[in-house]
Amino acid sequence: MAESLKIVVVGGVAAGPKAAARARRCDPRAEITILEKGDYTSYAACGIPFLISGQTKEIKDLLATPVGAMRDASFFKNVKDIRLLTGKEVTAIDRAKKQVWARDRASGQEEIYPYDKLVLATGATPVKPKIPGIDLANIFQVRQPSDALRILKALEETKPQRAVIIGAGAIGLEFCEALRRRGLEVTVVEALEQIFPGLLDFEMAAILQRYVEEQGVQVKTAQRVTGFAGDSQGRVARVITAQGEYPAELVIVAIGVRPNVELARQAGLEVGQTGALAVDKYLRTSDPDIYAGGDCAENFHRILDRPVFVSSGELANVHGRIIGTNLTGGQARYQGMVGTFVTKVFDYTVGATGLTEAAARREGRTALVTGLVPALDHAHYYPGAKFVGLKMVAEAPGGRLLGVQVVGPGDGAKRLDVAAAALTLGADVHTISQFNLGYSPPYNTAIDPLVNAAQVVENKLTGLAQALSPMEVQKLTEQGKDFMLLDVRTPAEFKEVRLKHPKAFAVPLGKLREKAQDFPKDKLYVTFCKFSLRGYEAEKILESLGFEQVKFMDGGLVHWPYELEK
Amino acid sequence: MAESLKIVVVGGVAAGPKAAARARRCDPRAEITILEKGDYTSYAACGIPFLISGQTKEIKDLLATPVGAMRDASFFKNVKDIRLLTGKEVTAIDRAKKQVWARDRASGQEEIYPYDKLVLATGATPVKPKIPGIDLANIFQVRQPSDALRILKALEETKPQRAVIIGAGAIGLEFCEALRRRGLEVTVVEALEQIFPGLLDFEMAAILQRYVEEQGVQVKTAQRVTGFAGDSQGRVARVITAQGEYPAELVIVAIGVRPNVELARQAGLEVGQTGALAVDKYLRTSDPDIYAGGDCAENFHRILDRPVFVSSGELANVHGRIIGTNLTGGQARYQGMVGTFVTKVFDYTVGATGLTEAAARREGRTALVTGLVPALDHAHYYPGAKFVGLKMVAEAPGGRLLGVQVVGPGDGAKRLDVAAAALTLGADVHTISQFNLGYSPPYNTAIDPLVNAAQVVENKLTGLAQALSPMEVQKLTEQGKDFMLLDVRTPAEFKEVRLKHPKAFAVPLGKLREKAQDFPKDKLYVTFCKFSLRGYEAEKILESLGFEQVKFMDGGLVHWPYELEK
Repeated sequence: MAESLKIVVVGGVAAGPKAAARARRCDPRAEITILEKGDYTSYAACGIPFLISGQTKEIKDLLATPVGAMRDASFFKNVKDIRLLTGKEVTAIDRAKKQVWARDRASGQEEIYPYDKLVLATGATPVKPKIPGIDLANIFQVRQPSDALRILKALEETKPQRAVIIGAGAIGLEFCEALRRRGLEVTVVEALEQIFPGLLDFEMAAILQRYVEEQGVQVKTAQRVTGFAGDSQGRVARVITAQGEYPAELVIVAIGVRPNVELARQAGLEVGQTGALAVDKYLRTSDPDIYAGGDCAENFHRILDRPVFVSSGELANVHGRIIGTNLTGGQARYQGMVGTFVTKVFDYTVGATGLTEAAARREGRTALVTGLVPALDHAHYYPGAKFVGLKMVAEAPGGRLLGVQVVGPGDGAKRLDVAAAALTLGADVHTISQFNLGYSPPYNTAIDPLVNAAQVVENKLTGLAQALSPMEVQKLTEQGKDFMLLDVRTPAEFKEVRLKHPKAFAVPLGKLREKAQDFPKDKLYVTFCKFSLRGYEAEKILESLGFEQVKFMDGGLVHWPYELEK
Repeated sequence: MAESLKIVVVGGVAAGPKAAARARRCDPRAEITILEKGDYTSYAACGIPFLISGQTKEIKDLLATPVGAMRDASFFKNVKDIRLLTGKEVTAIDRAKKQVWARDRASGQEEIYPYDKLVLATGATPVKPKIPGIDLANIFQVRQPSDALRILKALEETKPQRAVIIGAGAIGLEFCEALRRRGLEVTVVEALEQIFPGLLDFEMAAILQRYVEEQGVQVKTAQRVTGFAGDSQGRVARVITAQGEYPAELVIVAIGVRPNVELARQAGLEVGQTGALAVDKYLRTSDPDIYAGGDCAENFHRILDRPVFVSSGELANVHGRIIGTNLTGGQARYQGMVGTFVTKVFDYTVGATGLTEAAARREGRTALVTGLVPALDHAHYYPGAKFVGLKMVAEAPGGRLLGVQVVGPGDGAKRLDVAAAALTLGADVHTISQFNLGYSPPYNTAIDPLVNAAQVVENKLTGLAQALSPMEVQKLTEQGKDFMLLDVRTPAEFKEVRLKHPKAFAVPLGKLREKAQDFPKDKLYVTFCKFSLRGYEAEKILESLGFEQVKFMDGGLVHWPYELEK
């Protein structure tokens, strides 16, 4: 009988335990050891904001299975026959001897673990900016259960009234909600020009920012934090930027994470351009007996067609399963990801998949067609219908889908997932425009919002629809161009809220054919409504009446990223 | 200047107005006329159950746009420049002269409408069974707003206490909820062996039936209605079946619809095998100047690879858009559908896309692999997580997806739509098993339920997982086979609810490695838990201990279609 395969896994949070568990199921005889530096394993880091908000009751909930079994060493032993050792910091990999060195954090002793196959699932670490005062008390970064416990303790013991969150990405915005729910005044400070920089296009971020501000959060973009001032007890008291100071008794720094690759680098393994570990399609590093997965490893991005670095519990699980299969003789290939993210920001769903328009342009993909196409998430006559703000980006002239973004109170998560599947499978807008999705009034409109967006983008590709983005409209205004911005909503809608724009005037759609008889023919007309379905209709009406310069405004009032008048 | 194109559309509900509106946008000069037999146009028939339940407040809501514009003749004139005529029953098509004859229902006069292009969107009519008493008062069928008004009037004026619904499909079950909400006692009678016959597999229907019964609805399957008995005022009083009589002061008959093809048949147009109008990929009938769409036309089913007949407001809109394009010189092709449906039954989401296992087998596709794979719809530690009962059907050995069904309180609609997209694009379970969907605790688990199902099915395809369906377990029981049905849930879960099964015994997963030392090795073990994730783990544990006959039970307790013990 052959000796059993020795598998050592470095890292006990997501990809590591998944790889170990999968390997066990594939090979009942393997000797599997997980070495975890910290005290906690297999925890749901993504749940920390909800623990802070109180929506998740106990730290235990993030550490246990859905039926309450703690995923600790005895769980791994009894259920998985896996040796899980915590407090073991791996300090070196001896690839020649196929062994890792680990330091026991309690005893300080060095230990040696031999392996046949090694898995690196060392994760990532929050970026800690080198700013004066960063080490003051009540300044936190968020990654591990211990971070959550320290924040909860600070909230209880020091009763902060004002919080500043640095970084307006998913974690930052989730913390905005969590701390608002706990009654704090919250300011979020972002160094770049918009919230969710790199993840959402400007106009999508803008409508989200307006909403976040309505929830009582101050949003400060394009402000770089230069320092922190403390109080007499060594606790943070103010956050300092070039533009001003913000009082804060609690600060969360959430400006991104960096992959933990030092151990691998020192062992001579290849680190990719992204800073994460280079892996092949089998998730092997440059040493075929060493695999890497989760946040420490690169991800092949199918739309960019190159590796990227992202931090994702979902991808960690996918990696872990593939690694577990391959450790034990399998040949599973990673097909790559499409950059999907989703997050809840108060009651808005925010997410994207594929490329934003900005990212596509940055890549030199300039033959694009885009649509800002908000729609209701289900039939208007069934209670609770809300709008999904949706932007679609596709290649011109073929119409291949490149990306979708959603922002709004409606069920955007569903449309995002359908878009992610379509992207993965290389669909174009013509195919999506006929998708046979589930329709029933509580779940959808007869034309699904994603399908609707694909139809609008298709109409643009064929030249049937001509549109200007709100940014293009704004540019015309700033350039002093002569044009008419025609709001075709009903008088009641107009009374409720309007664009604040010097060129805006209102004619309800039903009166447009009649009233347009008197319009000067030589001007540019830009038509819009709430969502711009009627705006498109108005474009077609004016064109049919012989107006030659007509465009509808993408996204309508709902996607207008500039000032509104109530 | 060429004369403008004359388009006549027969039918003013869904596909017809959509085709007309699209044609208008594609051709501003076309003369477009819609002839509608009834008084209402462009109505949301799918909303009728919600009007009856009171969730939709007014009939007007089903007739108006989301901003309250009634889609009547003046709306079509002012907004669309389309002539919409109601009360016009088209009685004949003269294809040689290219004109239709219509009878004005008010005046009784015959009128002639010439066309260059004709669209048939004549819809479908509820099947009215020829049963004694079917014409008694308070027996209704549901299709049009007038039906809704008559039902509402009957509810108010005759105050029925008990309702019988005949037909346990989507409309029947939606009416169960609507009438329960209005306080009636409700019995649903279905002629076939299960609810949602043809749409769900037995075990999916069975867990739904259990839930529907918990909502206070009596469900009578395999009972054919043979007659109705009336009271002294000519109103229905009892519904009679071979198995018994059910008192009822209100009856809804919802046993399906038939396409309205008589007009087309008389004009010599080809009617397909399904009974609906045969159309090509451009949605032309056998006469190239006559298009057909919506419920009167066949739909090409991509998975069955042949035309089918279904009634769907969603498909009607897709058809209408294609027809409108093609009427005006375009070349849009219908890519076909995948048979997606979704409906809300009380607080359960019920739906399917592609083929059920039964349908696949009926088609002679017997090389199948299936998975019953329930999962939580989002992270267990975020409030409100509920299970999605999910069945996946794929081809063996390649793993191409054939269908997905969902039943349960969780967000199955999202997973269904992702599955519909994947099906349309020909995905296999290997690809789906790595889908990069949106993950955040309020929206998903780190492994999405659909992805999880694909992983389980993949595990079965590779032989890693061995499972028996609950029906196979039941069959072993009935055959008196010697096997052990091993429940590996926690003692607390076991106490709450258990399978009622003579072979069932319980050992919590965490104790299985230890306890199994004493198990006899020569028996068949069937392991399960709540969802059967732990059931699968238990299978692998027993296999690793040298047990040679081990399977897990698909779907676990949640999908057990037989008796439970509380």
